[in-house]
Formats: sequence, C-alpha cells, structure tokens
Amino acid sequence: MATPLVAFQGERGSFSEEAAYKLLGRKIRVLPCETFTAIFESVTSGKANYCLVPIENTLAGAVYENFDLLQANNLHIVSEVSLRIVHNLIALPGTARKDVRQVYSHPVALAQCRRFFAQNPKIERITYYDTAGSVKMLAERRPPGAAAIASRIAAEVYDARILKTHLEDHRENYTRFFLLSKTARVSPKANKISIVFSTRNLPGALYKCLSVFALRDIDLTKLESRPLHGRPWEYFFYIDFVGNVKEKRCKRALAHLGEVTNFLRVLGCYESAKR
Amino acid sequence: MATPLVAFQGERGSFSEEAAYKLLGRKIRVLPCETFTAIFESVTSGKANYCLVPIENTLAGAVYENFDLLQANNLHIVSEVSLRIVHNLIALPGTARKDVRQVYSHPVALAQCRRFFAQNPKIERITYYDTAGSVKMLAERRPPGAAAIASRIAAEVYDARILKTHLEDHRENYTRFFLLSKTARVSPKANKISIVFSTRNLPGALYKCLSVFALRDIDLTKLESRPLHGRPWEYFFYIDFVGNVKEKRCKRALAHLGEVTNFLRVLGCYESAKR
Repeated sequence: MATPLVAFQGERGSFSEEAAYKLLGRKIRVLPCETFTAIFESVTSGKANYCLVPIENTLAGAVYENFDLLQANNLHIVSEVSLRIVHNLIALPGTARKDVRQVYSHPVALAQCRRFFAQNPKIERITYYDTAGSVKMLAERRPPGAAAIASRIAAEVYDARILKTHLEDHRENYTRFFLLSKTARVSPKANKISIVFSTRNLPGALYKCLSVFALRDIDLTKLESRPLHGRPWEYFFYIDFVGNVKEKRCKRALAHLGEVTNFLRVLGCYESAKR
Repeated sequence: MATPLVAFQGERGSFSEEAAYKLLGRKIRVLPCETFTAIFESVTSGKANYCLVPIENTLAGAVYENFDLLQANNLHIVSEVSLRIVHNLIALPGTARKDVRQVYSHPVALAQCRRFFAQNPKIERITYYDTAGSVKMLAERRPPGAAAIASRIAAEVYDARILKTHLEDHRENYTRFFLLSKTARVSPKANKISIVFSTRNLPGALYKCLSVFALRDIDLTKLESRPLHGRPWEYFFYIDFVGNVKEKRCKRALAHLGEVTNFLRVLGCYESAKR
C-alpha cells in the first residue's frame, strides 16, 4: 500500500490524530471527519484505508456510540493503541503565560483540569466544541489574552506554543483506540480477541457464556453491555479476551460460545496495546 | 410522612415527572433540578424526601452518569418504575396541526421521531436543551407556528395541547428509573436486588463472581461495567438480580460474593417494575 489514509473524528490536531501517529508513525495521511458515523463510512466506502476510533477512557468509561457502530458496520479491528491523555496549555507565539485571561476547550477537557483553574482563579474557562478546534480558532481569530487546552499535536499543527504541560488532574487518564479496516487481518503478534454476542434466553445465560473462557483458563480483559433494539431489557455483550484465533483453545472457546448464544461475531484479533 | 417531595432532573413536565406520578400517584410535591448531581444532593441534604433517577433506556442504553452517582453517594434504591417513552407533538391553544412550521425539542427526542419529519418535510427541527423546557418556552415566548415534542405531562403543566401522539419511530422505547432515599427500606413485595462490586485481581474473577448466583439458580437481569478511577482498565460491576435480601439463598450468595470481591455494596432491594 502507498501512504495509508487514516480517518478520525475531530479537527486536525485531535487526540485521535496523536494516537494515530503513536500507532502508525508520522508517515500517514490523515482525514479529519465531523462525526463517528462519518469515519466508519469513510472506510466502508473505500475513501480511507483505516479509521481510528476511541473506544474507552479510564476516567469517562466506554465510548458507547462506537460500540454500537462496531455492531452496525462490518469493519474489522486490526490494531489497538492506548494513549495517555496529556492536556497542554497552548497559545500563539507572542502570548506569554502571564498574559492568559481566557482558556478555550471542550467541556470534558476543562473539567479534567480543575486544579489548574483553582490555582489560577483569574483565568476564565470558555467551553468550545473541540479541543484541537479551540487551537484552530486561536490561529484564525487571534483573540488577545486567549489560550486553549489540547494535545501537543494541536500546537504543532497550528504553529502554536505549549505554555504549560500536564494540566490534567488525574495522571491515570488513558484512552484506548481501535484501528479499523474493511478487510480482516491477523498480525503474527496478535494476542487479543474482541467479540460481540447476544445470549439465548436461558437461566444463567451470561454465566454459561463466560464459562467457555473460564473452563479453558482464558483471561477476559473487558466486558461491556449495550441494549438490543426492539427487545427491551435484552443486551449485546462485548468481550475482549487474551489469545489468538489460531490457537486451539480459542477456536474451541468460540465454537462452544456459538452453542450458547443467539448471535456471535468476532470483531478482530490484534496485538494488545502497550500501556 | 406528609406529602413527599420528589426531586428530578429537568424542567416541570419532564419524563421523570411522568414516571414519578406513575410510581407514586399524583399526591406528591415535585422539585425540578438542573443536574443529576443536584438531585442526589437534594436528598443527601434532606431538602427532598426522594429523587427519581433515569438509569437505563431500551434504545440509548445506561445513563452512565447516574451509575457513577449511585456509587459516589450513599443513597438507597427503594423502588423502580419503567415508563414507556411516548413523544407528543404539543402546541399552544390556537395553533392547529396545519399551522406548525417549527418543532422544538431535545436532540435525542428529535432523533427518535425521524419518520414524522420524513413525512412532514416542510417542518423545521430546532434543537432545544430539554423536551419539557421547549413547551415552557412556547408558553413564555409564544413564537407563531411553533410546536414542541415532549411528554403528555408537559402539555398539562404548561396548558398546551397535544396535536398528535406517538411520534416516536420505535414503540419499544422504555426508560427505567430508580427512586432513591436517604434511608434503606425493603418493601414486603421486594423481589429484586441491585449491587455494585469490584473484583479481586485473579484469573476468571468475574466468572467467579457470577458463579455465586448461577450455583444458586439466581437469575441476573442486568450487568453494567464502569471504570474504576485511578486503576486503569479495572472496573466496577453493577448487577441486578432476582430475589429478596431476607431469602437464605440471597444472603448466602452475597456472603459468597464478599469472599471473591475487593468491594461490595448492596444498593437496594425493591419491587421490580411492571413493564
């Protein structure tokens, strides 16, 4: 393949773009899209080679919309990356830290930097639709005394400067992303499998599903439930477990799971992200 | 107790208010609050007797913020109610259905009525912060040719009229609410228990937790996971199961669960909602 085109949600300089570089290096082309639906569509239509979707944050939890989109679309997880979310105070050249009167960012980012605002009570918080978008706005409109909170890539993309780093209150702030492709591919290093299933209407149904892993000493790393539309109070379960689809015990566990589920799909088998 | 005061999130006439009447009848006083945090606080401080919190919708899934607030606060689930979400087209007296040019509502309600807008392409959708709040706005500002999408209670509260009912695309649209109180209370009819726990760091930990129920033929009705702050990729699990805390097998299951968890709390034992 020539230089791959990778779609992500948000403006240029988003945390998704930072994650894409961490996973794939800097020799990629990027396609910023407005919505999560649009990034799935860009890969389905063949416009982009991959999309990178945030799936879970250690503070905010699962990105539920993307679980539903994994189910609604027929894309495959080919890789995973975990990015530490570092919030930076960013301003244009010429604005020093002492000049900052207003700080623009997405409300979630502002809420994750409470300590900074408590220590700087004269600085006004202004909510904006996007973290990287607030740096873009600084570059376009050049409001005096203004800064933004965003990723280090946003500073780079818009020729701005990082005045202070690590504004976030909690250091244990990570986001996991999946790299999705139209064609399934299992790397030789793949050691993690993601699946989605719905249980049969039996007593102890979920327990029976988990037993196919436990009885084979297969470790689960994640379980998420989402509503099944049209069947009130029934659920799809998303599970990540350690293994490779070519391993015998994983093949057997999946066959066994097929016996006790109504619906089962392997979403991908990929190399686990390093922390 | 005299007439109980029940706090809920949103403006007067919200679906939460409709659910409160369904559960407790019309002889209650209501306290509308701006945020979910505020309704928990109103009960903790003793200002309100109860709060009614939406916990799960059959289309949108769990209301994750309220799972986190159940964990962060020390309130008890004393009852449960399930409300069918019926979206109504509501206008002030004098506005006929043929006069309607704009429809105001919360973006989620607008998105759940796609078929109505497809059939009425000349009607403009205008997003507003709240369903009931959009009816309140009609009553206050009286914009010509305007209607709103909201609960039937909103029409009643603001002296407006229902022009058309069942605008929702999916009939299987229900929201479950919990009634929370400062003091635990187990009704004689209680047949459902809600708990939250975190697993010990063992292989097959979640499987072991579910086995305490499966081995005693206790049915689970719900499992939800939420991130554990400060411990990346570890989770709190929320489980609902059928039973009463006074039953021997439930007492034994909870004692057994205590052996295999780091943390365990019973959130309440209450009568299951009728569909």
